[in-house]
Amino acid sequence: MNKTDIKLPLGFRYAGVTCGIKASGSRDVCLIVSDHPTVAAGVYTQNQVVAAPVILCRSVTPSSDARALVVNSGNANACTGEKGMQDARRMCGLTAELTGIEAQQVLVMSTGIIGHFLPMEKVESGIRSAFAELDDSESAFLNASDAILTTDQGRKIVSRQLELNGSSVTLAGMAKGAGMIGPNMATLLCAVLTDAPLSETQAQSLLKNAADLSFNSISVEGHTSTNDSMVLFANGQANKEDAGQGLSDEDFELFATELNELCIELAKKIPTDGEGATHLIEVQVTGTATDAEASTIARAIASSNLVKTAVYGNDPNWGRIVSAAGYAGPKLESAYLQLKVNGAMLFVAGEPVAFDEADVSQRMRDEPTTQIELMVGGGTGKATHWSSDLTVDYVKFNSDYTT
Amino acid sequence: MNKTDIKLPLGFRYAGVTCGIKASGSRDVCLIVSDHPTVAAGVYTQNQVVAAPVILCRSVTPSSDARALVVNSGNANACTGEKGMQDARRMCGLTAELTGIEAQQVLVMSTGIIGHFLPMEKVESGIRSAFAELDDSESAFLNASDAILTTDQGRKIVSRQLELNGSSVTLAGMAKGAGMIGPNMATLLCAVLTDAPLSETQAQSLLKNAADLSFNSISVEGHTSTNDSMVLFANGQANKEDAGQGLSDEDFELFATELNELCIELAKKIPTDGEGATHLIEVQVTGTATDAEASTIARAIASSNLVKTAVYGNDPNWGRIVSAAGYAGPKLESAYLQLKVNGAMLFVAGEPVAFDEADVSQRMRDEPTTQIELMVGGGTGKATHWSSDLTVDYVKFNSDYTT
Repeated sequence: MNKTDIKLPLGFRYAGVTCGIKASGSRDVCLIVSDHPTVAAGVYTQNQVVAAPVILCRSVTPSSDARALVVNSGNANACTGEKGMQDARRMCGLTAELTGIEAQQVLVMSTGIIGHFLPMEKVESGIRSAFAELDDSESAFLNASDAILTTDQGRKIVSRQLELNGSSVTLAGMAKGAGMIGPNMATLLCAVLTDAPLSETQAQSLLKNAADLSFNSISVEGHTSTNDSMVLFANGQANKEDAGQGLSDEDFELFATELNELCIELAKKIPTDGEGATHLIEVQVTGTATDAEASTIARAIASSNLVKTAVYGNDPNWGRIVSAAGYAGPKLESAYLQLKVNGAMLFVAGEPVAFDEADVSQRMRDEPTTQIELMVGGGTGKATHWSSDLTVDYVKFNSDYTT
Repeated sequence: MNKTDIKLPLGFRYAGVTCGIKASGSRDVCLIVSDHPTVAAGVYTQNQVVAAPVILCRSVTPSSDARALVVNSGNANACTGEKGMQDARRMCGLTAELTGIEAQQVLVMSTGIIGHFLPMEKVESGIRSAFAELDDSESAFLNASDAILTTDQGRKIVSRQLELNGSSVTLAGMAKGAGMIGPNMATLLCAVLTDAPLSETQAQSLLKNAADLSFNSISVEGHTSTNDSMVLFANGQANKEDAGQGLSDEDFELFATELNELCIELAKKIPTDGEGATHLIEVQVTGTATDAEASTIARAIASSNLVKTAVYGNDPNWGRIVSAAGYAGPKLESAYLQLKVNGAMLFVAGEPVAFDEADVSQRMRDEPTTQIELMVGGGTGKATHWSSDLTVDYVKFNSDYTT
């Protein structure tokens, strides 16, 4: 709860409290309420095994009439069957009762261990305490963003401001998810709040695109969870007359750029954060026919265990990188094939070149981000993917007996 | 070179010698010659970045008129451009000269570091020595099978015999490839030799199917190499009148069963062998619409870092297994969803069941193979996939500076 320079959008109140789900005693219930009806968009896990709160959220977004988000950490309410659905509905119902709104105006997220029922007595008392503490202050926002964390090393928040149609518009985001995936199942949760006057359609399309460029472009182990959820609330309070009206094409582009950058900034905190991770790996692929092809190649490289262990060992191992590109699928044009690691050219026109291995290795050791730039052809497609290195501590952490 | 109970097919001679490519001084040139023209089939890496010897082999298999296989270890002759192609051709050419055959009757394989030219003087002297030592004895076969190894902990050989049309037919196979993928790039090489009278078409179809069930159903890190190659020689010498004539439908099925089992037995030695690996993981998936769907799910589970670290930690972590199935793609029918680990039921009808965690964990600790059995629906599709666990030693080994 240190002072930050976070900027907060108008019209939202926040709370983060401890209800006792987590053994650690840290905050585990988060409540966010918009004082006015808000447009809400959602993007959720592609896993077929989904937690109860995801099923509930999917059924109510996109919406033009949401009001609140309630989150608990410490228990994912996943693989909990019909009882789990009842508990998720009760979290929304109680929030609605307290706030004087309808249950379908409340979104819900859970994260933590899976296969256990929520301790509903604690959760309900947590929601009541959170409601009592709702506030639009920075410290309330920080409490809320702390209450969604699980194995994270630290809080993940970002804000941005821009001018749209003469009004100052603010975006603030919070996320959770650690490079090292903790007991039973990690979840990626993200909530972005803005006072921009987006339409429901705009919000959903903006969020989908931002998710693809950010949270869908990071990998720690490529294991999508049962609970991954990302929501965008846009209450239009920056300029009340415009609320829900939607942005002009020009403003839409300006807003999209800020939202994308905010989400990328938040998403990169996840592989950076992991327990045991010693490098963020940034893989930029260019020269494909389409961005989707570049993304496929970048993902294959960023998620290769051989690449991830080489980065951990500060080893500029071009063979592992180039061959990962080779099995990714999209066509490589060897005449164009060119690889740089931390700015040093290792491979040109399909063949390795002489380089100072000790120097490149030292640069990898010195720099927190290992930058891999691969050109694979003459096309205009491009994509960036982020991951973390695979370390001894990663294995230790994830092999601890956790069931 | 211990005495083994390996059975050898008629009409093949072998040699394995040291030419000095490997710093360790262990055998690094393998030569196998069939005294009569032999049917040859090949299955190769799907990686777009392929080594020179793979390009050469692809151009001559399937064939009804092959005679020899020459292999070097210690250097993969990959990412070596036109010079690499010349060197691979020279290996075939020299073998042909010595044997008195044509260069296109010779198959070639290389494995080891990539991006370096072959030391051709050493390789040529090795091929000459190997030719001089060719012999049909067990010890010659063992030398040959040792000469293809790189980071392997031990020799990988298997043989089988069966009766076909009144003749005794023998299959002998050798493979290399380690669970832990060593300096720069691991390669999977496999040669299966038989005196059965397969036709060229039969040999290619049999080998492709056996590869899918065996070497294409194992994963250590899912990183297909630039050099992966598998060949089948069938010289028909078990019954000379039938050579190249092909098997009857009935004999084809009998032979297919033996070949598949031999290849599975060889392939399982790869994840078992890895430095640092403490468990072989065997994932059996049933109940899909097709075998291909079962294979997709089994591969996703077997290659999940979260599953692999859980097995290392002897943790019966059903959440990681079920959620890996959930993101694999093929449809899961939750009413059928059922999971066993080492025989213990952990999950039934889409929900976890109570089980003795300490007991299952102890069984995982005690047994070298962790058996994961997942039913996902009411279909008849099934597949098995094998991998190794992800251990602290794996990361140490693969992050050593190797470029």
